Amino acid sequence: MSVINNLKWRYATKRMNGVQVPQEQVDTILEAMQLAPTSMGLQPFTILEVTDAETKAKISPAIYNQPQITEGSHVLIFATWTDYSAEKVDAFINNVAQTRGISTDSLAGLRQMVEGSLARQTPESYLAWAQRQAYIALGVGLVTAAELKIDSTPMEGFDPDALDAVLGLKEKGLRSTVILTLGYRDTSNDALASAAKVRRNIDELVVKL
Amino acid sequence: MSVINNLKWRYATKRMNGVQVPQEQVDTILEAMQLAPTSMGLQPFTILEVTDAETKAKISPAIYNQPQITEGSHVLIFATWTDYSAEKVDAFINNVAQTRGISTDSLAGLRQMVEGSLARQTPESYLAWAQRQAYIALGVGLVTAAELKIDSTPMEGFDPDALDAVLGLKEKGLRSTVILTLGYRDTSNDALASAAKVRRNIDELVVKL
Repeated sequence: MSVINNLKWRYATKRMNGVQVPQEQVDTILEAMQLAPTSMGLQPFTILEVTDAETKAKISPAIYNQPQITEGSHVLIFATWTDYSAEKVDAFINNVAQTRGISTDSLAGLRQMVEGSLARQTPESYLAWAQRQAYIALGVGLVTAAELKIDSTPMEGFDPDALDAVLGLKEKGLRSTVILTLGYRDTSNDALASAAKVRRNIDELVVKL
Repeated sequence: MSVINNLKWRYATKRMNGVQVPQEQVDTILEAMQLAPTSMGLQPFTILEVTDAETKAKISPAIYNQPQITEGSHVLIFATWTDYSAEKVDAFINNVAQTRGISTDSLAGLRQMVEGSLARQTPESYLAWAQRQAYIALGVGLVTAAELKIDSTPMEGFDPDALDAVLGLKEKGLRSTVILTLGYRDTSNDALASAAKVRRNIDELVVKL
């Protein structure tokens, strides 16, 4: 079972070797994250792709200067939409109609469901919900990276306010949520590269009711 | 690239045909979710596995009697830990020490990092964080199901208070967060089985900085 082997191979790489990941492979990972399901299909986030040294230097302090940012190849920042405006609901419904070759009128029920669901949220519960959706794509992306034998590090250790400020995200209605850095492990400098993977026993993690 | 093809094959199956998924394959999906990374490796959730008709009947009203619960084979309920107690931190540290054959004393730095991170959370931000971790495993699980050509439906459409009550989760320090139902699509009754997949255009989803 290749997914299991790939997941055993991967680990949260702390040190990378600076080698670039071919853009074609990164695009495959991005396509997988595009295909990841989200609640009602709403995809309430944008993925910011950083590759150039200048932008990396700019964002690095907000990520506590962790070495993966400069030693990694691609830094993917999941930025959650801070609100799901009526305009965005329109765009969503139009996309469903166009993709399926049907009228927007025939999607009145879907629109009602989406609007009702969004209306029931507080700003806090909406953001928590939107951020969870990004984490599905994160999970899909890191499996895909592992299949391509590309190392990936999910990173929560950053200051979202500082990162939002340096990239001007707040004004764009975005909130930095989680980072996935892609690159290749530097086995000579990363003690974790050879450390045994630690997980809760399956009989503790899974309870049969 | 098999992950991409698998992700294109899968969809949020609304109607399933009642055929059982072999337990061995479900165990592979569970192992993949066990291997999914989480923040600091803390895995702050339990996966409840439901297969028998009686328990399904019991939980069905809290999930608005959606047909996947009875037509599906396995219902996996991700139940987030409502707090990460000092006892759980101890168990985590002990697991790292045992798995890696090192002393717990040598993990004082890790313990400090974990305790510090947990201490900075409010109850609300802790729960939102813990729930996000479950969504990484959700993403990993549905990719794995698709690789096995097993249909999976991520479900947020349920009443968590009602589900917690019927399963007595609150007393166990658990909060139902999201459900993944496994089974096989009933193409004759599920209009979505043949519907085109709708996703935001990659150039809108991904912004190169």
